[in-house]
Amino acid sequence: MNLWRKALAELLGTAGLLCAVLGSGIMGERLAGGNVAIALLANTLATVFALYVLIEVFGPLSGAHFNPAVSVVMALRRELPAASLAAYIVAQLIGAMLGAWLANVMFDMSVLQWSTKMRSGWGQWLGELVATSGLVLVILGAPAGKAAQLVASYIGAAYWFTSSTSFANPAAVFGRMFSDSFAGIAPASATGFVVAELLGAAIGVSFYRFVR
Amino acid sequence: MNLWRKALAELLGTAGLLCAVLGSGIMGERLAGGNVAIALLANTLATVFALYVLIEVFGPLSGAHFNPAVSVVMALRRELPAASLAAYIVAQLIGAMLGAWLANVMFDMSVLQWSTKMRSGWGQWLGELVATSGLVLVILGAPAGKAAQLVASYIGAAYWFTSSTSFANPAAVFGRMFSDSFAGIAPASATGFVVAELLGAAIGVSFYRFVR
Amino acid sequence: MNLWRKALAELLGTAGLLCAVLGSGIMGERLAGGNVAIALLANTLATVFALYVLIEVFGPLSGAHFNPAVSVVMALRRELPAASLAAYIVAQLIGAMLGAWLANVMFDMSVLQWSTKMRSGWGQWLGELVATSGLVLVILGAPAGKAAQLVASYIGAAYWFTSSTSFANPAAVFGRMFSDSFAGIAPASATGFVVAELLGAAIGVSFYRFVR
Amino acid sequence: MNLWRKALAELLGTAGLLCAVLGSGIMGERLAGGNVAIALLANTLATVFALYVLIEVFGPLSGAHFNPAVSVVMALRRELPAASLAAYIVAQLIGAMLGAWLANVMFDMSVLQWSTKMRSGWGQWLGELVATSGLVLVILGAPAGKAAQLVASYIGAAYWFTSSTSFANPAAVFGRMFSDSFAGIAPASATGFVVAELLGAAIGVSFYRFVR
Repeated sequence: MNLWRKALAELLGTAGLLCAVLGSGIMGERLAGGNVAIALLANTLATVFALYVLIEVFGPLSGAHFNPAVSVVMALRRELPAASLAAYIVAQLIGAMLGAWLANVMFDMSVLQWSTKMRSGWGQWLGELVATSGLVLVILGAPAGKAAQLVASYIGAAYWFTSSTSFANPAAVFGRMFSDSFAGIAPASATGFVVAELLGAAIGVSFYRFVR
Repeated sequence: MNLWRKALAELLGTAGLLCAVLGSGIMGERLAGGNVAIALLANTLATVFALYVLIEVFGPLSGAHFNPAVSVVMALRRELPAASLAAYIVAQLIGAMLGAWLANVMFDMSVLQWSTKMRSGWGQWLGELVATSGLVLVILGAPAGKAAQLVASYIGAAYWFTSSTSFANPAAVFGRMFSDSFAGIAPASATGFVVAELLGAAIGVSFYRFVR
Repeated sequence: MNLWRKALAELLGTAGLLCAVLGSGIMGERLAGGNVAIALLANTLATVFALYVLIEVFGPLSGAHFNPAVSVVMALRRELPAASLAAYIVAQLIGAMLGAWLANVMFDMSVLQWSTKMRSGWGQWLGELVATSGLVLVILGAPAGKAAQLVASYIGAAYWFTSSTSFANPAAVFGRMFSDSFAGIAPASATGFVVAELLGAAIGVSFYRFVR
Repeated sequence: MNLWRKALAELLGTAGLLCAVLGSGIMGERLAGGNVAIALLANTLATVFALYVLIEVFGPLSGAHFNPAVSVVMALRRELPAASLAAYIVAQLIGAMLGAWLANVMFDMSVLQWSTKMRSGWGQWLGELVATSGLVLVILGAPAGKAAQLVASYIGAAYWFTSSTSFANPAAVFGRMFSDSFAGIAPASATGFVVAELLGAAIGVSFYRFVR
């Protein structure tokens, strides 16, 4: 399959992921009557189910990264041709934005909006670093054929055990900026999260090399 | 196995699906003390579990469509003989109605009732379109042997990330009309949902051809 | 393996099942602050997880029936020697009682107690009939190697979609009588449930023969 | 792989487990608005997902015990060299402490703190005994290749059906002492829990030998 089709698969899959994350966040927030834990439980279940399905369905097409940090790791390990990296990342970012917009339209909100939810501080940045290093460890350490259920399960846990609710994905940060809702992130908070994620990915790769 | 037995399997399976969807909706609504998110969480879990079981058990008998939109797609792909299509759809519709009636009787409600829950508007119609196109993509793209868990997981996510709570199935729309409860849909809202679902199915097929 | 060991496995497994059902019911009720849906969600998750584990672990030892209705069906199908049936049922009943007592002691309640929770009426009896016929259909129709996850998933759905919360097991009825808590059943209500379950099992077997 | 690397894997895995247990406990408590059942549901989901992932990823490296009681059982069965036992246990304890500290820092709490949550009494001690004997039975009785999902599912059930919420692990007791939060345990309560767990492990081994 040529690069255009792979990039299209990354775009569609990342759109599906962000639509699932943000749509279920909006639905959860609307229905939970102010109990944030119930909203996050719903958000968690929807994300785990969606991520599992998306990785199984798009894995054979593009590898189902949906995540620039993962694509960089794969390029470093030469499992993704270096020449494909830029196309993957651009496709993921566009897909993330489109997925957010689709959720906005489905829930009768204005298409173009910006999150006002500030997320910052050393605790949350450490949370993102931990979340992403763990994600990279899981992806590199997953036994053959189990990546989909392991990555989905990992994110389901990390939504709760990291202080940042585990974005763990620069494309997710980008897409969530376009949703002024439960699962959004204000653009002013994006850089801190992305830096923490890239650091976390590097630490995850180092840990993996050290243990193996 | 001849067509009559396959149609019977579709009827039984669709009855089981609607009984599970509507029964768990009634139970959730009764117990949740007004917190709609908790009711929908229960409804989601029951639907995911039931759908997984029904597809595994009835898959070898009839293919476990339980859904006219899916049967039409399968007929177009010649995986269902064109001559079987009408019998499948009639069986699904009858099964959906019987499943709703069974839930009504179990929960001590009058057998014949009509939902009064209006569900309409561009947002929800787009939700149904997205839900059904995604469902078709998952069914067509599922790796061999994983359809049951993937379809069940997909619906579990889509209950939350689509604004319509993802009926994604004209037989489900039909059956839910017969339940004046949490998961019902007023007959006046049915046409809009079914049109959106059929459009979504067509878009799902096109997307699948384009990506593959 | 001789019959004594098989019966011991049935006793232990049924004790584990009832301890899980009743213990999680007590815990759920105590923590849920009066929201019955949350208590039942916890009860459902614990039951699904426990049932899955018990069937996987005890399946190779005794077949993991934990249920007189299932043992009768297996004896009729000659998958259980007729001479073993009585020992299986006695072991299941004793195990169910011991499991309930263990939960009572763990939660600092008096060992011997009787449930005061009345459960009766045509709606709930129909619920038990539906629950048990479905359970038998799932057991007989489960593809090879998938019985554990299918039975556990089925019960997880049926806790919510049947009006009786799906006991579907005369040994469960027996054990639940010994727990004056969320998941108990008053002895006066037991007969109605057991009759409905046996009828349901018979209907499940008939349906299976008819469809196959 | 030499012992140092195996011990490092145990340290990392146990740190991940305790970070997941305690982090999700803190997050659940903060968001649940006082409903303890909702906090424990979140804590349960995160623990089940994390445990499943950790066992799959670290199993091929060190066996993924993360638990001194399990390591002792494995040493007795000669599946772990006796000479490795001390290193395993020390690694598990250090890892548990580091995992707790990581959760503390992520959630902007002081690194070094002690739990003030008293957990004692015959009911809870029996709970720990039951929890650990069941865990050992599941580990010894798990069919090949299913240990990860069975252990994770078992703990998910035992969080609810045992009166102690199932620590079932002396390293977990140790790590939870360092967290003054929902899932912590006061140091004064630790000895009782550990004694009950070791007794439970012994009973689990005996039961397994008796049944097999």
